[in-house]
Formats: sequence, structure tokens, C-alpha cells
Amino acid sequence: MANRLMFEKPLGMRDTLPFFYNQTRQARQALSETIESWGYQFLDTPMVEYLDTVGEASAIDETQLFKLLDRQGHTLVLRPDLTAPIARVAASQLKEKGYPLRLSYDGPVFRAQQIEGGKPAQFEQVGVEYIGENSVYADAEVIALQVETLKSAGLENFQLTVGHIGYVKGLLKEIFQEDTETSERFLRYLFRKNYVGYRKELEQVNLSDKDKNRLHQLLSMRGQENVLESAEEITTNGACHEAIGELRQLLHLLETYGVSKYISFDLNLISHMHYYTGILFEGYAPHLGSLLCNGGRYDQLLPSFQSEASATGFAIRLDRLVEALSATEDQEEYILVLYDSDTFAKGLKEAQSARSEGAKVVLQKKDQLENREQIGERFTNVIDVCAGGASHE
Amino acid sequence: MANRLMFEKPLGMRDTLPFFYNQTRQARQALSETIESWGYQFLDTPMVEYLDTVGEASAIDETQLFKLLDRQGHTLVLRPDLTAPIARVAASQLKEKGYPLRLSYDGPVFRAQQIEGGKPAQFEQVGVEYIGENSVYADAEVIALQVETLKSAGLENFQLTVGHIGYVKGLLKEIFQEDTETSERFLRYLFRKNYVGYRKELEQVNLSDKDKNRLHQLLSMRGQENVLESAEEITTNGACHEAIGELRQLLHLLETYGVSKYISFDLNLISHMHYYTGILFEGYAPHLGSLLCNGGRYDQLLPSFQSEASATGFAIRLDRLVEALSATEDQEEYILVLYDSDTFAKGLKEAQSARSEGAKVVLQKKDQLENREQIGERFTNVIDVCAGGASHE
Repeated sequence: MANRLMFEKPLGMRDTLPFFYNQTRQARQALSETIESWGYQFLDTPMVEYLDTVGEASAIDETQLFKLLDRQGHTLVLRPDLTAPIARVAASQLKEKGYPLRLSYDGPVFRAQQIEGGKPAQFEQVGVEYIGENSVYADAEVIALQVETLKSAGLENFQLTVGHIGYVKGLLKEIFQEDTETSERFLRYLFRKNYVGYRKELEQVNLSDKDKNRLHQLLSMRGQENVLESAEEITTNGACHEAIGELRQLLHLLETYGVSKYISFDLNLISHMHYYTGILFEGYAPHLGSLLCNGGRYDQLLPSFQSEASATGFAIRLDRLVEALSATEDQEEYILVLYDSDTFAKGLKEAQSARSEGAKVVLQKKDQLENREQIGERFTNVIDVCAGGASHE
Repeated sequence: MANRLMFEKPLGMRDTLPFFYNQTRQARQALSETIESWGYQFLDTPMVEYLDTVGEASAIDETQLFKLLDRQGHTLVLRPDLTAPIARVAASQLKEKGYPLRLSYDGPVFRAQQIEGGKPAQFEQVGVEYIGENSVYADAEVIALQVETLKSAGLENFQLTVGHIGYVKGLLKEIFQEDTETSERFLRYLFRKNYVGYRKELEQVNLSDKDKNRLHQLLSMRGQENVLESAEEITTNGACHEAIGELRQLLHLLETYGVSKYISFDLNLISHMHYYTGILFEGYAPHLGSLLCNGGRYDQLLPSFQSEASATGFAIRLDRLVEALSATEDQEEYILVLYDSDTFAKGLKEAQSARSEGAKVVLQKKDQLENREQIGERFTNVIDVCAGGASHE
């Protein structure tokens, strides 16, 4: 083993030490209890899939895939997300159950990193997929559940931004007609949230003042219900009006769910260049520099597995959720019982009794303890049963 | 996407459908609660490591490793076990905490399969590592905890077979002296549990009758405490007597722990050709054709990470534990609330109320339901709030 590499991990790979492990587990458990109480069923799929099936159906860019070869020469990938594998299962083993299916998952996904930029190459996602129902009721359920999961994990201060891909694409189509190249360029600026580039492109493009003005207005269509009105006013396009109609119905349902205070609209939200086909959303928490969760309707994935089913879902970045939650140290009873070769039975009895009351107890032979100074930091209580009766320090 | 491959998974890769997922989670939770109550701290390490570090330090044969290349041309492996990565962490980030360290883990490991032989290429292991203490007290703690974890998961009928690598190697050394080649051959028969091959080899080998007799007796040294006596009688070798002394002390401690009824001895137990260095054990359950769990003392792994520490631990195959537990269907309340566009608010109220009482509730728009015949199989109760008052079917 080369000494230089002895303690090294591959680019973007991290260890999860006990403190973060416990916080993560706590958050995971709260999320999954809420998800299950809404009748979603958890399942898991392998970490490794064929590139030809799940790799290509996934929404993740090919440059971000971890690839490997099997002994038959097939290219395998470490799963970059769980939506595509779950679509595979929903369209095969679970199909006979009848749609709609409410499925959920929790596990690591992989994204290869090109440079050491602090981004993890493996992280955990918790998510749901509501498969086989194309109704705003399904969109509303998934968004309401997104709110309730985050709340159940202890997050209070967060915002979901909701958009509709049909509105943006409808407006761009109306304005650019057959010029799909320019239209894609504007879409890409929105996808990258590069509003400076968008405005610069807008100055140079050959359009009527009215259309330039509408594309400018698109950028400011963010906020509450009134945004939907202005969005409706600037176009008579049927696809756009349909999209706004869905968003109005969604808002009404989310008010009934009692979660509308967490919702705002952003009609230039894209999230992905091709994946989403209807209502979509992103979630942010203050002080978190990056996306906490996102989701939306995707109608083209299941058909790629020969199942004509619409679907919607969300995925939470568990590492970022834990980062957003204020870290509090575990205040559980954590007891150290010290014994020597004469007093093992006595020490064991103390340990068993404290464990049976729910405490975490280390039973330790005293002469094997290396670093006695740090005992105080690690344990809430020390019981020394060595030589001559129990002493509670 | 080639149609042929559309629903295919790589060799040995499996989906985990909801029923098995829930059973696995239940077992996992019982195991980890017990492990934590003994003061072990859970941590996790990445799925992907360098071949040069963790890959080579692992006890798993290189032909079983999943390998991939990163963009810098380094060979990476999907982790084949968690003991080596945890040794890496214990010898680096956690070293300042002072030994002994009680660490635990729970996660998938990977073993490449050459043929479709029904063996999984990915499976979950739950385990503990007790690092930095070379005492029989530590061996006893790990074995007692092994018993208690299996019991806490609901397994009653299982047996741990305990051996000592020092005894076998001491006896072979005494008999074969410098002929390490023949000695290794006998060791390999024991490792492969190929007792026919061992006996055949024994007929052919050039040894005194006394030595042949002793090697024959080694095969039958299985059972309770009396085995230790016969093992002691056939040799005056210091290493062998030291090993038997440790096993006697171990048995005494396990009696104090109250777990000795799950223990038997097997003095020709090897488990691994090179890895273990002292007391070691394997766990079996009836009707389970394969190893349920194993563990033992390994003193050469930490030094490969520049830390002079002895260690012991165990690992449980979670998939096999779930197989060994008798499968019982989930008897929780699982309710379906049906609404139509006029009665969403009413349905929501019913659902929220049942969820708050702990039930799992699917809230479903009635006209979106594809397969009404299977409702009865999936739900313990159906509440239809559509048009004209709640009806509980």
C-alpha cells in the first residue's frame, strides 16, 4: 500500500462519523414515518444497474455517471438516482398491483465529480413516486407530503417554489414558433438560473417589443397568487392558460391541505432541460446555499419502460436537510461501567440494569482504557465497580 | 434501449420489494438498538474506495471485487466489507478518541459473481468492531453481543461455533515443523470444510502414527467444554495451551453473561486463511443453508493502517437473518379513503384523523383507481366519502 494513499478516499467520497450518522438517522426516520403514514410503500433497488436501461432513462447527465464493466463486457453504472430504477420496478414486478402506485425510497445515489469542488460523489436521497395518475390531486398530494415530511424532520423555515413547465414552453413556442434553437437557448439560461445571460440574449435577439417585453416579464413572475394573474394576462395561448388553470387548482388544494404558506410560484422555474412535463417545484431553506429538495410531474419516463403512465414525485437531499436542521447534541444517557478481573460479574449486573432502563452502556475493563482524560466528554455518568464496592463518580 | 435488456439487472443484483423491505428494516432496527445499548457508535463509509487502500486490506478475495476506474486512472472498488474501511477511520479520524473504540455499521457490501448461481452481488451487513483491546473480555463482549443481537431480532434457535486459530496453527506447526507447504494444505482443507479431502491427504502423508492420530482427532474436536480437555491432552505445545486457556476463560465469561447455551466449540474452525489471529466464531440457524454471521479477533488489519491495535468484531448477513426469521405479514392498519372532486376536503379530514392515530392512510381520488378488485387485499379498511356521506365499507 502506497503510504501517500493509505488514508485517502476517491474524489468526493466521505466518511459519516457517529455524530452526523445519528442526526441523519433521526431525520431519515421522521421522513419515512410521515411518508408511510400517507400509504407510500418503501422499496429498494440495486446500487448497480445497466447503463443501457436505468442509466439512459435517468435524468442525470452522462458525464456524472460512475461507470464500470462487468465480465461480459456490459457497461454498468452506480445508480445516479432512484426514480428510473423505481419506474423499472413499477413497470414490471409491481404492474399487476394496478395504478396508481405510491412508492418511496431512501438510499445512496452517485454522481461522479470531475474536480475536488467540495461536492459529494455519493449522497442519500429520500423520495416518493406517485405513479399512474395524471391529476392535479396527485400533484397536490406530493407537494403537501413534501411540506409535511420536512416539518416532521423538524424543519420550520423553508419555502417551496412551484412552477409549470407547460407555461414556459407554451410562451416560448408562441414567441419563437419554429426557431427552436433560440428557444432552447432561452430555456437553457432559465435552467441554469443565468438571468444575466438571459437578459443579454434578449437585448440581441430579433423580436417585437411586445415579445421582448413578455420575455422580460417572465423573469419577474415570482410570488404569490397574483403572479398567476399577470402570467395569464400576457398570453392567450391555450397551453399557457391550461398550465395556469392547473396551478390555480393546485393552490386551492394546497390551501385545503393547510400548507399554502410554504408555497410560492415561480413561472420561469425549469429544474431540468427535458425531464419534467407539468407542475414542478424546488425547495430551499435559509442559509443553505443549495437545493434542499425538488420534484414534479414526469410523463415520459414510464413509457420508456413500456408503461403508459404519468407520474409525479419528489426527492430530498438528506445530507442537506441535516445541514439545514440546527445541530443539537444527543442528550441520551451514555454510561461507562468500569470493572477489573475480580468484579466483572458485578459490573455486568450494573450494565444490564442500566441498559434495561434504556441507557447506552459501555462495560469496560479498567486497565484497558487508554485515554482516561476524555471519559468526561464522552459519558454522562461513570460507574466504577472495581475493588471494594460500587462508586458512582 | 435494447428491449431484451429493458428490465434486466446486472448479475446478482436484486430489487427489494415492500414486504421484504419492511421485514429487513424491522430486523435492522432491533439489531441496531441492541448494539447501541452496549455503547457502540454507528458510522458509515463510502461505497467506493481505492483498491490500493481498502481493497487490498480487506479479507475478501480479489476475484470478488467490483472494480472501476476513476478519471485519474486509479482503480476503485465497491466496498467488499466494512471492516477494512472502519479500520481506516479508526486509525485516522477517530484515533484521538483513545482506544478501545466500540464502533458499528450497517450497510451494503458488494461481491462480484462469476455466474448466475443465485448468490447476491450486493447484500447488507450489520456489524461491530471492538478496536484496541487484546483481552478475552473483549472477545467475550463481542460474542455475548452477537447472541443478544440475534435474540433481539427475534431469532431463538441458533448456535455459535467458537474456535481458536492459535490452536490449529500451533498443532500444525508442532507436527509439520518447517514443511509449511503441507501444513497450508491441511489448513486449506479445514478452511473449505473439505473433511473428505483432509482425510485422504492424511492417509498419504508421511507422518508418525501419533501425529496422524492427532490430526484425526482434531476433526472431532467439536462440542461442549469437554472438547477443551481432549484438545489439551494431545499436545504440550505452549501456543496450543495458551489458546485453550483463552477459550476456558471465554466460556467462564459467557456463562456470566448468561449466553453459554448458544455456544459450542469447534477447534478446527478456520473461517479465513489469513485474516483471523485468535478466538473466532461462526453462527448458524437451522434450515438456513449458509453462514448467518461470523467474527473473531484480527490483529493484523489495524497495523496495515499504521496503528498497532488488536481488534475483534462480528458481521451479520442481514438478508440471511431475515430469511431465518419466520415471515409474518404486517398487521398494521392500512386504510383507503376514497373521494371525488366534491368531497376532497371531507376525505382529507378522514385521512388526517386516521393518520394522527397511527394508521397508514392512502387518500385516493376514486375515478383514478385502476384496479378495484385488489383493494380488499391491500387495505384493512376502505372509507368512501364520495357523494352523500361517509360510508365505511
